[in-house]
Amino acid sequence: MTPTITAFERSPDGGKGLARDTRVRWALEEAGQPYEVRLVSFQAMKEPAHLALHPFGQIPTYEEGDLALFETGSIVLHIAERHAGLLPGDANARARAITWMFAAVNTMEPPILELMTARILESDKPWTKERLPLVMDRIRDRLQQLSARLGKADWLDGAFSAGDLMMVSVLLRLRASGILDEYPSLSAYVARGEARPAYRRAFAAQLAVNTGKRPTG
Amino acid sequence: MTPTITAFERSPDGGKGLARDTRVRWALEEAGQPYEVRLVSFQAMKEPAHLALHPFGQIPTYEEGDLALFETGSIVLHIAERHAGLLPGDANARARAITWMFAAVNTMEPPILELMTARILESDKPWTKERLPLVMDRIRDRLQQLSARLGKADWLDGAFSAGDLMMVSVLLRLRASGILDEYPSLSAYVARGEARPAYRRAFAAQLAVNTGKRPTG
Repeated sequence: MTPTITAFERSPDGGKGLARDTRVRWALEEAGQPYEVRLVSFQAMKEPAHLALHPFGQIPTYEEGDLALFETGSIVLHIAERHAGLLPGDANARARAITWMFAAVNTMEPPILELMTARILESDKPWTKERLPLVMDRIRDRLQQLSARLGKADWLDGAFSAGDLMMVSVLLRLRASGILDEYPSLSAYVARGEARPAYRRAFAAQLAVNTGKRPTG
Repeated sequence: MTPTITAFERSPDGGKGLARDTRVRWALEEAGQPYEVRLVSFQAMKEPAHLALHPFGQIPTYEEGDLALFETGSIVLHIAERHAGLLPGDANARARAITWMFAAVNTMEPPILELMTARILESDKPWTKERLPLVMDRIRDRLQQLSARLGKADWLDGAFSAGDLMMVSVLLRLRASGILDEYPSLSAYVARGEARPAYRRAFAAQLAVNTGKRPTG
């Protein structure tokens, strides 16, 4: 059964691929699975019909028969568990790949979300200019540790996995800040993710929604 | 094979149960699994031997034979997948329970971590007093949505699951702030988690480490 995901009718980033539906599209493309997309407006996201699917009024959601999921990490894991291409077959390697998924959303993303919050929700506050360097230094601490672990490897633990999909997606949020460029190995890691055909198809699909053009890929 | 987890030699919270090893201890207690604990000092956490286990220099870690994991969510999921008591048998219900695990760490915890950061790392900054109410209001937005979804139910989706274990653990970080008391149904939800015998054993075990006394059961 073809699943249906939700995405922004109009993404706040205008199609840079940072909305979280891109992560789910990418996973579905890696798995070679077709999917339908239902676009939702900001207003509709706060209405009962959408809140029944997503209690926090966000996107993406995932519907497949009588299963309804929210939370990007959980949706990506669900796809990864059911199709080849996103998790290793060996049980220990699989557990380590899932560890990187959680590291992406619970260790790396929180300080990055602080930066987004400071830049968007607190941009007009008198403290923001002085505070931003502290926020950025906390992100640098994490990037330094991640860079040390990645070393000269292409991916975080053996072959590309859902852990890399999530980590690359989280790091992409930093591109506009310039911080990522301070860590060349991480910049190259993110670029390897973006170069994957599945990512390119996912990116084109979300861009088409936001520009009103069909993907030509 | 009995797994070994790591915990703080001396927890920053002095034994209030907020260090993340409590979440793993709780999962192991729900699953009825014995475990060993290796205590690590703040200094040792930043040394190569520990960084090889945990690239971000934190606790907990999980070692079982030749498997080594880090990230609390991933460790709890690993335990939940291998033992009864933390995930439903039905595949759809299982996927929804995992969704709540990710919601706990990626939707609910980031604004709560912002509060911890403001209170601990930015406590001496001139803006913190004026900024804290904004941070707390962002947490309230999430609590309101969570409270609406929980309704009159005991747990987030049917029987107690690893999703509740993670959500209760994340919400416990708010107790000292008093915000949780503004949402009586969530306060009661957290209290239900704390009343579980497995939680009480996990709490007693971490307290014993931090007070130097053995748990009395």
